[in-house]
Amino acid sequence: MEPYTLSLAEASRMMRDGGLTPTRLAESLLDRIDRLEPVVEAWVTVDRAAVMEAADAATMEAEEGRFRSPLHGVPVGVKDIFYTKGIRTTMGSTLYSGFVPDRDAAVVETLREAGAVVLGKTETTEFALHDPAATRNPWNTRHTPGGSSSGSAAAVSCGMAPMALGSQTGGSVVRPASYCGVVGFKPTYGLLSRDGVYPLSWSLDHVGYMTRSVEDAVLALKTLKPDAAPAGEVDETPRIGLLGGYFKENASDEAWLGFEQAVGKLWGEGAEFIDVELPLSFGMAPSVHRVVMAVEAAAVHEDGLRANPEGYREYIKGFVSSGLLAPATAYLRAQRIRGIILRDVLSLMGGFDCLACPSTVDTAPRGLEWTGSPAFNAPWSLTGLPSVTVPSGVSEDELPLGLQLVGRPQRDHDLLAVAAWCEEALGFPKGPRDPYTP
Amino acid sequence: MEPYTLSLAEASRMMRDGGLTPTRLAESLLDRIDRLEPVVEAWVTVDRAAVMEAADAATMEAEEGRFRSPLHGVPVGVKDIFYTKGIRTTMGSTLYSGFVPDRDAAVVETLREAGAVVLGKTETTEFALHDPAATRNPWNTRHTPGGSSSGSAAAVSCGMAPMALGSQTGGSVVRPASYCGVVGFKPTYGLLSRDGVYPLSWSLDHVGYMTRSVEDAVLALKTLKPDAAPAGEVDETPRIGLLGGYFKENASDEAWLGFEQAVGKLWGEGAEFIDVELPLSFGMAPSVHRVVMAVEAAAVHEDGLRANPEGYREYIKGFVSSGLLAPATAYLRAQRIRGIILRDVLSLMGGFDCLACPSTVDTAPRGLEWTGSPAFNAPWSLTGLPSVTVPSGVSEDELPLGLQLVGRPQRDHDLLAVAAWCEEALGFPKGPRDPYTP
Repeated sequence: MEPYTLSLAEASRMMRDGGLTPTRLAESLLDRIDRLEPVVEAWVTVDRAAVMEAADAATMEAEEGRFRSPLHGVPVGVKDIFYTKGIRTTMGSTLYSGFVPDRDAAVVETLREAGAVVLGKTETTEFALHDPAATRNPWNTRHTPGGSSSGSAAAVSCGMAPMALGSQTGGSVVRPASYCGVVGFKPTYGLLSRDGVYPLSWSLDHVGYMTRSVEDAVLALKTLKPDAAPAGEVDETPRIGLLGGYFKENASDEAWLGFEQAVGKLWGEGAEFIDVELPLSFGMAPSVHRVVMAVEAAAVHEDGLRANPEGYREYIKGFVSSGLLAPATAYLRAQRIRGIILRDVLSLMGGFDCLACPSTVDTAPRGLEWTGSPAFNAPWSLTGLPSVTVPSGVSEDELPLGLQLVGRPQRDHDLLAVAAWCEEALGFPKGPRDPYTP
Repeated sequence: MEPYTLSLAEASRMMRDGGLTPTRLAESLLDRIDRLEPVVEAWVTVDRAAVMEAADAATMEAEEGRFRSPLHGVPVGVKDIFYTKGIRTTMGSTLYSGFVPDRDAAVVETLREAGAVVLGKTETTEFALHDPAATRNPWNTRHTPGGSSSGSAAAVSCGMAPMALGSQTGGSVVRPASYCGVVGFKPTYGLLSRDGVYPLSWSLDHVGYMTRSVEDAVLALKTLKPDAAPAGEVDETPRIGLLGGYFKENASDEAWLGFEQAVGKLWGEGAEFIDVELPLSFGMAPSVHRVVMAVEAAAVHEDGLRANPEGYREYIKGFVSSGLLAPATAYLRAQRIRGIILRDVLSLMGGFDCLACPSTVDTAPRGLEWTGSPAFNAPWSLTGLPSVTVPSGVSEDELPLGLQLVGRPQRDHDLLAVAAWCEEALGFPKGPRDPYTP
């Protein structure tokens, strides 16, 4: 057994039991990175010496019986928009290609204090928007891994890291996680600190992460946010609101069929499903999301774009420019409609443990030019509701599909409890994937 | 002694002691209104029958020994942008000249539950912006009473009501109160509910009120917001930060002299004054305030102005139009600078009980076309800090001047405690003013 194949929880247990050291785990992951990186291109920066130094320190503490948290000695990938002290942080932009922060983002600091090892910085689209990174999808290297947390999803998928931090403004955690067949979790808006994370659109930006199991996601949340509300008492089988409408209309035939098959499997295991009709206001979510995001991104990049227009790639340039044109009243109107959408969605969640829909419109698109549509994730970024994707199956051409579950605000552990039940019932293989190139 | 001459606190005590009934108090105030209204024009609506019905009900309860609050049986004027159930609420606009709400604003509901009597609706500038009402200043009816809470300030000043509700977005409580020689209190942003108050600019709008004594303002706050933080232990004499710079530069010679005389008087009574240098960011307060207010007012009135351009007067039409032109990024930038200004101002409040400056740039301007400059009040609306004006003296041509005190967020009772000390030391007469026409 190679340590890189272990899930976060498995590795954590083995390190406690003495069957594995942080040093050995880090070595195994660095070897895996060395071997696969030329094909996957998930990393911007991996400082081998710094990783081994941190791993050795964790090993020494472990030998003294000191385990700081379930993440003690666990190497974690960090999306390259999170500030890392002394490690280059590029934002996926040439403008920041030489930028070395003098501080850690708050969650990175929490990770280090918890004994986790910063394994390196993962590829991101430019400023976490749409201009793609070079990263490939391990399930099929001719396909995108999704974005913007491209490197984090691909790295976790192929066993370069058991966990990686990402961020989601539209669909940048759940979508790439689903495309790469891993678990992607976007907690309630604001639950994990955005401090030290380069903003894309601050009222929509969420810190989240990828793992290969829901159990891992639970351990990570307990470590990153110890005071998050614990899971309440749960019935043995969940009661889930089934979202059709917008999701059915926009899903590919294959994605919807896969979703129905997953629902059928869960139903067979005893889950209860009730059709939920989306509120009328939900139809405005995509345009409201776009206005808020374009305007806030424009506020972030207005000065930069004026000073260095050649430093921006095409998509973000157009997006920021569109945001600069928006009148302030359009932005305020969008924010007000956003409040109405949230109120309306909350009003229909009463009787359920969570809502369910496909994680993405389709499987990962072919090619690396486009990171795919965030259409099924952006509404949950807009409403700030916690959402998680659990791998649910594969398409005909062997690309993963995901089941997206959406929970109540601040009830993140409740949502993960249902996700764990679904993961168990769906039985998708959790081991890392060797990259496949057809 | 005519009951209309009593302060809120005096009337409240007499009603408890049985020397006065709510019915008798209401009759006295209605008589006063009948007598002075042709000259002062403070009221949009006074429903004599409804007032007497409510007063009689309060009298019956009082006879049974039931006193709901210190405001039991106290008639209160209500600015005409506060929804009042069954009473016409015009917003000072012809567009709403026939509008009768089917509910009370939250604070009006609280007043009624506390046993207070809604005495009537007071004049406001159009939609609480600058297009003036017909109201005159009782100290000199050729002068404006200030705005936008014009009727509330004038009514309290000349003894038509012991208290009246107002609202402040720029300087609409403190300025007219100062111009009319009464106490005007604008609590911390959000402390009193804006629910049911027609918005002008929601991130700047404050609910406040006028009385003829600080003691009255304390009783009103205890009634309207029982869970506001109580006053802490106070030293016998206050320690006050003295604001110069912007305030000295923009004050008229007479206003600044009056301020210095008031400060001298307080110093003579033992108050400690320390010069405070305003932070650099404070210089941006006026323009930041204007952008935020114009944009939010535009968001409120955009549809209305398109549908009924002829229903708006000149100033608000221009103001809303300017807000419609602002790009969203300008608004967001303004809101961000606003946060910096607040942080900087808070950082210099550490050693003081409060800050002090003149309440207004000058005494009430002559004429009714312009309600005067909110320049000395808008920064406290922008930062959301509680502020209060206490009458401090009169100018050469017998118009009142006010001392403005500014406190810490959520420490409203602390601020009022200092204001009470200053009021006592300044010794300005509290009785109602008979209107004077030269």
